[in-house]
Amino acid sequence: MVSEIKQDFPEDTDFSKLIKKYSDELGVLQREARELEIPLIIVFEGWYDVFIGEIINRQLLPLDSRGFDFYFTTTPTSEENKQPFIFRFSRKTPPKGKIAVFDRSWYMRGLIEHLLNDSEKFGCQNLTHKTNLETVLTEPADKKVVNTPVFTRLVKTINDFEKTLYDNGTRFIKIYLGARKEKRVDSQKIWKKIIPYDIDKRSTEKIYKKDIYVIKEVIEQTNTKNAPWHLYFVDPDIDKATAGTMKIIIDQMKQIIYETKTKQEQIDYESKTANDEKTNFEEVNNKKINFEEVNNKKINFEEVNDEKANFEDINDEKTSFEEINDEKTSNKAAENGKSQNSIAAKPLDLADLSKSYTKKEYKEKLKKYQKKLSFAHYSLFLNKKPMVLVFEGWDAAGKGGSIKRIVQAMNPRYYRVIPIGTPTEVDQKYHYLRRFLDGVPPCGKTSIYDRSWYGRVMVERIEGLCTEEEWSRAYEEINHFEKAMTNDDMIVIKFWLHISKEKQYERFTARSLNPLKQWKLTDEDWRNREKWDQYYDAVNEMIIKTDKKDAPWVIIEANDKYYARIKILKTIVKRIEKELDKEMKELDIPHGD
Amino acid sequence: MVSEIKQDFPEDTDFSKLIKKYSDELGVLQREARELEIPLIIVFEGWYDVFIGEIINRQLLPLDSRGFDFYFTTTPTSEENKQPFIFRFSRKTPPKGKIAVFDRSWYMRGLIEHLLNDSEKFGCQNLTHKTNLETVLTEPADKKVVNTPVFTRLVKTINDFEKTLYDNGTRFIKIYLGARKEKRVDSQKIWKKIIPYDIDKRSTEKIYKKDIYVIKEVIEQTNTKNAPWHLYFVDPDIDKATAGTMKIIIDQMKQIIYETKTKQEQIDYESKTANDEKTNFEEVNNKKINFEEVNNKKINFEEVNDEKANFEDINDEKTSFEEINDEKTSNKAAENGKSQNSIAAKPLDLADLSKSYTKKEYKEKLKKYQKKLSFAHYSLFLNKKPMVLVFEGWDAAGKGGSIKRIVQAMNPRYYRVIPIGTPTEVDQKYHYLRRFLDGVPPCGKTSIYDRSWYGRVMVERIEGLCTEEEWSRAYEEINHFEKAMTNDDMIVIKFWLHISKEKQYERFTARSLNPLKQWKLTDEDWRNREKWDQYYDAVNEMIIKTDKKDAPWVIIEANDKYYARIKILKTIVKRIEKELDKEMKELDIPHGD
Repeated sequence: MVSEIKQDFPEDTDFSKLIKKYSDELGVLQREARELEIPLIIVFEGWYDVFIGEIINRQLLPLDSRGFDFYFTTTPTSEENKQPFIFRFSRKTPPKGKIAVFDRSWYMRGLIEHLLNDSEKFGCQNLTHKTNLETVLTEPADKKVVNTPVFTRLVKTINDFEKTLYDNGTRFIKIYLGARKEKRVDSQKIWKKIIPYDIDKRSTEKIYKKDIYVIKEVIEQTNTKNAPWHLYFVDPDIDKATAGTMKIIIDQMKQIIYETKTKQEQIDYESKTANDEKTNFEEVNNKKINFEEVNNKKINFEEVNDEKANFEDINDEKTSFEEINDEKTSNKAAENGKSQNSIAAKPLDLADLSKSYTKKEYKEKLKKYQKKLSFAHYSLFLNKKPMVLVFEGWDAAGKGGSIKRIVQAMNPRYYRVIPIGTPTEVDQKYHYLRRFLDGVPPCGKTSIYDRSWYGRVMVERIEGLCTEEEWSRAYEEINHFEKAMTNDDMIVIKFWLHISKEKQYERFTARSLNPLKQWKLTDEDWRNREKWDQYYDAVNEMIIKTDKKDAPWVIIEANDKYYARIKILKTIVKRIEKELDKEMKELDIPHGD
Repeated sequence: MVSEIKQDFPEDTDFSKLIKKYSDELGVLQREARELEIPLIIVFEGWYDVFIGEIINRQLLPLDSRGFDFYFTTTPTSEENKQPFIFRFSRKTPPKGKIAVFDRSWYMRGLIEHLLNDSEKFGCQNLTHKTNLETVLTEPADKKVVNTPVFTRLVKTINDFEKTLYDNGTRFIKIYLGARKEKRVDSQKIWKKIIPYDIDKRSTEKIYKKDIYVIKEVIEQTNTKNAPWHLYFVDPDIDKATAGTMKIIIDQMKQIIYETKTKQEQIDYESKTANDEKTNFEEVNNKKINFEEVNNKKINFEEVNDEKANFEDINDEKTSFEEINDEKTSNKAAENGKSQNSIAAKPLDLADLSKSYTKKEYKEKLKKYQKKLSFAHYSLFLNKKPMVLVFEGWDAAGKGGSIKRIVQAMNPRYYRVIPIGTPTEVDQKYHYLRRFLDGVPPCGKTSIYDRSWYGRVMVERIEGLCTEEEWSRAYEEINHFEKAMTNDDMIVIKFWLHISKEKQYERFTARSLNPLKQWKLTDEDWRNREKWDQYYDAVNEMIIKTDKKDAPWVIIEANDKYYARIKILKTIVKRIEKELDKEMKELDIPHGD
């Protein structure tokens, strides 16, 4: 019997604060699971009006996008329908150290909806299945459904599938989000006002009664020791629902990580966890900062110390170290700005790095442009227009933080973040542009590339990973590649996040002191830094040679993170609005400045 | 101007002999291209009644299936239609050392058919495109088509795509197979009698006239220096058409290989090619046979010498060394058969390895069962039934030769051979069954696995690549995996090709002496051989634990290759006929014993 999970939050809980705390915890747990090479599957199922999409998006935001894949399961495509039903999910199982998050899965979309509605479409042998499912088809929501051989067989397939994965190391967190009747009605009312999407027509009381019996039965029969279900009734307060769901994931991940460790590691882990706060501080104090470098460069050392002092605030409102950093440095950024008296027309020379916003300005503009982006992005989906956003920039220029502010405003079903690392052994056997193809979005979807094919004319050029002839030719090849996209009415925008060399040093140092961010800083970052001037020239050449009307480069002055984020949001919104101007008006979606 | 290629074969040419000669040449050229790490794209386009499918199949048969991928391009799926049109082809470009063969490509299916017929379906923005294509839609076959901006843009996209690939090392052989009017009519008559499929309804004179202007224009405008077209008018004599097409590919591959080599290599190559026949013989005589092993084992040395003597026949009727070998050894096979007085019920002990056919019997039965298989396989396609054939067996048991005899009877559009090697770096990060999923056939298609997931309980078990706990568990996991297929009405048959240890030694030795087959024999084969007894036990356990009613193991007595091939063909035909019994009758396709 699957029993309900209750999260007892005190009445005066500040959920926004709690979510920040949980977010940090999730980030840490994700890195621990990665180090232990655990493949983790998180399944979200639920009734139609619990706003799974929104809740999931909030679980994903704190995660490192290189460490997870998100799958929104829709009705199978005709191609998917031509294969055994479990295989389209088997393909999406995660590798070692990675998380696969399923927004709907082999349960609702793989099994239940088939049984209840689409059984003729099931598999290759329509007729055969139809005969088997005759009783199902005539009386869908009846107990008869769960007594058919088809039902039994499909449930067994799922249990076998999960068992095989479990036995070979994969771990499961399966969450069913329910909503009580009165809350279901409430939430519909509330959410219709806030977001324009996600209201599912299936969500009526009649259908609910019809289907819930079968759903319950499936949940019960697939509630195994290795892959148990967690049933959680969500509150219409989205913050509360998010926190409650996060708590389930955190608790389960802790358990999974604990069980994966060896006995000795478990003992260590327990003592470490007990002294968690203290340990962190010790680490900070013991940290071997690269003092040599600190003395060599003229860095505002006071500021570094200031930042350290701020550590006490860690569970305070200003949880995000990044934000603290932003606020402090924004006013000083002007000093570090590049001189504009440049000789030739190097695009980067022209960037005014002193541009900045106060925290207040930032907060207001963030709210405004995120709301606009939310509408604009949904309009793209309705208009079937695909979009590619490319993020390039100096290490520590704030690509990750900027992407986060964008996706906060998007429905995860319609966007993907595609982190680009070094090519694999297999990638290297192919033409260098091929590995980027899988991320190219279909109609109506958005892909956000965190680094991209421009590696060819930056790191590969500078590190000598390709010949001069190859990278010289690549500008034109990349233009053709992007032209193939824009020809098909795809929106393409490329951002270069620009900071000064001094600002980068500050951020590196700050990262090295922040236990929550140390992992972001690698030796490679320091090595790249030594080649700043080479990169500076390469980036200028790249921007000049690949800046096209349909696929423009936008240089983002990013010494001040506030300014950078707002400029990016604004650029995207303006571009979408321009492209969709006609359609926007037809839809009567408000838009303006 | 693309000029026609004429192949001047003497009137008395024995095409069947010539095709054998060309096949050997193609095999050698494929290996040379692989060693030089050339990614090669072979594009077949042509009018609808030139039986491209049949001609291509005959080009593919001599190739090592590990070295090429075959793509039959159909009308794009709804998913493919949601992306820039060239990208679904970019994904299929070959890695270093591999060949991608396209049966229709970005020309007919990617560009021309869209322009002429399906333009509304083109891309995401139906309306936008419709407007652009208005002139096209109203007067499809007119000169106006090729004057539209859309046409110009798409042709440029193709040329850019091919240029980028060429500049990065990919080489192209693009062939357009035409048929003159009178031959087109002829061929329809002839082929309707011979094969039940492949008669395309589009193939009327009216449509021909309508479309050919645009096709010509596309061919001309994409006839670039780097990726030139080869226009060849085929004869209704399929052997002649095959030989003519093979000759084009051979000539082009030689040219490509030559140009890829360095100057010094080119000089060596020229002198080698001049003395080709002689060189081969020298190699045979100089070959360092592992004489130690020869003396240690009690091998029929006379036979090895006999085989060597037969080399003079190489361009004779008996070109295939394999066949010569078969004929010689079949009568002696009985001596090598395993004793049947085994203690426990080891399945392999029960195999009577003395079973054999004479060459005459073989030829008759091969013809009979290949014809049956051709009908049966096409019936599978019509009935949307997928099939998986798994080939496992001792090294040199004849898996490759058996698969070849199967696919000779199949239309390449409906089958794939999936060679399984060691898992890649990326594969290893995933669950061990995942890498086999891509090969699982959709409705109506057949996948032939040359080695398979059974590696887990054979090589991985014996080489200690997984733990005992892991391989012990794998039997059940594999049963579940196959159950997921058979649940969906997929036909699954697993063949174990069984030979005696002595027979293997004979074949290894023969391979080491045959310059056309040396590449097949690796040091690993000899190492595996040393573990014969361990494998013998593992195979028996595997067969016992994974032999299921819906997914049976069939042990093939393969000391005599003739017997083995016929038994395999027969098994497949019987199984298909059984499964499709009802449908076969409805289709009125003759079948019997």
